[in-house]
Amino acid sequence: MAEHVGEVDPGTRRLEAFSDGIFAIAITLLVLDIKVPRLRDTDEGAGLLAALGGQWPAYLAYAISFTTILIMWMNHHSIFAGVRRSDHGLFLLNGLLLLCVGFVPFPTALLAEYLGHTGEQVAMAVYAGTFVVLAVAFNLLWRYRIGAAGLLDHHIDLAFVRGLSRQYLLGPPLYLIAFALAFVHVGASVALCAAVGVGFALPRTFVRFVSHERT
Amino acid sequence: MAEHVGEVDPGTRRLEAFSDGIFAIAITLLVLDIKVPRLRDTDEGAGLLAALGGQWPAYLAYAISFTTILIMWMNHHSIFAGVRRSDHGLFLLNGLLLLCVGFVPFPTALLAEYLGHTGEQVAMAVYAGTFVVLAVAFNLLWRYRIGAAGLLDHHIDLAFVRGLSRQYLLGPPLYLIAFALAFVHVGASVALCAAVGVGFALPRTFVRFVSHERT
Amino acid sequence: MAEHVGEVDPGTRRLEAFSDGIFAIAITLLVLDIKVPRLRDTDEGAGLLAALGGQWPAYLAYAISFTTILIMWMNHHSIFAGVRRSDHGLFLLNGLLLLCVGFVPFPTALLAEYLGHTGEQVAMAVYAGTFVVLAVAFNLLWRYRIGAAGLLDHHIDLAFVRGLSRQYLLGPPLYLIAFALAFVHVGASVALCAAVGVGFALPRTFVRFVSHERT
Amino acid sequence: MAEHVGEVDPGTRRLEAFSDGIFAIAITLLVLDIKVPRLRDTDEGAGLLAALGGQWPAYLAYAISFTTILIMWMNHHSIFAGVRRSDHGLFLLNGLLLLCVGFVPFPTALLAEYLGHTGEQVAMAVYAGTFVVLAVAFNLLWRYRIGAAGLLDHHIDLAFVRGLSRQYLLGPPLYLIAFALAFVHVGASVALCAAVGVGFALPRTFVRFVSHERT
Repeated sequence: MAEHVGEVDPGTRRLEAFSDGIFAIAITLLVLDIKVPRLRDTDEGAGLLAALGGQWPAYLAYAISFTTILIMWMNHHSIFAGVRRSDHGLFLLNGLLLLCVGFVPFPTALLAEYLGHTGEQVAMAVYAGTFVVLAVAFNLLWRYRIGAAGLLDHHIDLAFVRGLSRQYLLGPPLYLIAFALAFVHVGASVALCAAVGVGFALPRTFVRFVSHERT
Repeated sequence: MAEHVGEVDPGTRRLEAFSDGIFAIAITLLVLDIKVPRLRDTDEGAGLLAALGGQWPAYLAYAISFTTILIMWMNHHSIFAGVRRSDHGLFLLNGLLLLCVGFVPFPTALLAEYLGHTGEQVAMAVYAGTFVVLAVAFNLLWRYRIGAAGLLDHHIDLAFVRGLSRQYLLGPPLYLIAFALAFVHVGASVALCAAVGVGFALPRTFVRFVSHERT
Repeated sequence: MAEHVGEVDPGTRRLEAFSDGIFAIAITLLVLDIKVPRLRDTDEGAGLLAALGGQWPAYLAYAISFTTILIMWMNHHSIFAGVRRSDHGLFLLNGLLLLCVGFVPFPTALLAEYLGHTGEQVAMAVYAGTFVVLAVAFNLLWRYRIGAAGLLDHHIDLAFVRGLSRQYLLGPPLYLIAFALAFVHVGASVALCAAVGVGFALPRTFVRFVSHERT
Repeated sequence: MAEHVGEVDPGTRRLEAFSDGIFAIAITLLVLDIKVPRLRDTDEGAGLLAALGGQWPAYLAYAISFTTILIMWMNHHSIFAGVRRSDHGLFLLNGLLLLCVGFVPFPTALLAEYLGHTGEQVAMAVYAGTFVVLAVAFNLLWRYRIGAAGLLDHHIDLAFVRGLSRQYLLGPPLYLIAFALAFVHVGASVALCAAVGVGFALPRTFVRFVSHERT
């Protein structure tokens, strides 16, 4: 069949489009975790402002999950930059990552429901634990991509790739610390998850990547 | 990695596709805010017509939010027209805009639930307030895009760009007025939000943009 | 800005991609209207088979709505075939069509809830009425597209275009009949809506279009 | 209209993009079937861990359905590789497949609700039965695609295509066995569905396809 395929490799294009779709849908489904206080629960709206204020965990969980998925999408994007041919391992490891990304709305909803209540430690552990798995899946995909024969050639600035690899490797241990913190101090665990998301969005590495891309 | 990339810059393509996805999903999720009256609440359907009529705020909120996101998507489209390279700032400011776009289904559902009830002022303020933030995020993205080095060159009709900038700048103050109006007269606030959406869809500027594009 | 744009017109590409996204999301959200019978309502599952059988209206509504949106997407696809430049009218009329497409999950859920109950006439009238508006919006878009200057040129087989126009014009009156039938015989109205969907999928016109495309 | 179309056939591109969208949305909606235990049902969270553990069927159903749709998407991708022109039959059979794919979240939610309860046999039969229909639809599409005039030419490695055909043909009988097993031993039926999904992801055939693609 592939003999019909011309200069455009549909494999990578559809793989990227499919992945983008799942990232975009997962990130947009997050809003469904912010529940509208019902009329009957707010005395016909007299208590709406208090009810809206009371569900601050839902907004916080939305913001952290949205940022984390967005940043992960930005970095996913750099995984596939320059990949001309998809192979079986790339498909499967990318599938594993997407399985985790598609799962994020669940722990987000869990955190939104339990933050501030007795079960918050368990909810936060599930939330941070999901990000541990997500970060591991991301690193597996990245390692496979830079290790696969033919995907990296002499044009590549190896120091730059090593820098990215080092940065990505920070994800799993940091989220693991957040996971452990969940049982000690939930607020610190939330803050760490937020900080990791923001940290990966910092311009340093990304700008280096982009400026590299421009060269 | 970028050395592998040929004439097509995947950065902008995937950025646009991802943004389009989030706009499309957010706009389509709006319909979930229109609740089907349950059989038990309508006396097995005997009271269905009245029940459907009674939830007019849901249809109105759907129409205004759909129109506003659609128009914003049309204008988002003009932000990226001609951008060949995405950079870090564009990524982040676009991400901020998407965070707001993805949030719109929540205030829409809120307005659908509370319009006509005691809490309608708070709900309308949240609704208009979301659009204030959305319009500010849009202006930040637009300002960054026209200001970034290398994105605007000698081919650009500066008078045209300044005209667009002036028009976009109208968004935040108009939505701010709608926000203030929410506490005085909810109906006027709704009408203003609807009018701003429709106003930005008027042919004048857009046609000028398109005719410019054809030149 | 457009001066930067090369041979690929991002306007039509993104317009199509955005429309495809909304069609795809609306069609996939339909499944959410098929509710899972809860354990507490089926005596821990002892009555599951009966409960599943009892919600046949949900499967029927899913099938008809899915088919109708799918066929409309196929024809939407022929509207934009050959359009190189989007203009303001095309944007707005396409937006109107998308507003209707995005709305379809609501009357589908309504029909799933009320078919077989007292309110079925009202539910069916809303369902068929939505398709009347949808078909009118489709015809407006089609008329605009074939009428817009520069969109049809001497290459076009006018007899073929007229044939398509005639076929599309059948939509609104047929759905209007289904709307009227809803108050007389709900089953006949359902059957007519299903038949129109299937009818538009018949190979005659479509094959002519495709064979024309191959010329 | 098609005379306007240049070297890129929008038919196949939009058909693939639309299909990808439905696969991506269906796969991401699966997460909505994992319900967050409400505060009132877990004694303010004191019983959260037990409640989360108790809904293992939901995680299992999510994992199996996600994997199955993902693998089917990967294979869908090989159906369209090399297809330059879509025709009416391809549209309709693809539409039938999408109708089934879009339906998967429902039996997944059903299985998540009933596994471990009295109704689990019925739920599992519906789940496996959906995959029977899905696999049949997939085979119909594949058969049509390799049989359609002009789609297979002298470049094709017929032995390779026959190998794929044989593998795909395994799907319907295997899921049929899972369907029958549902009434005998639910656990075995679940295991078989999971095994089929994983089996189709095995590198053997896929790698052959990819290596073939590279030739």
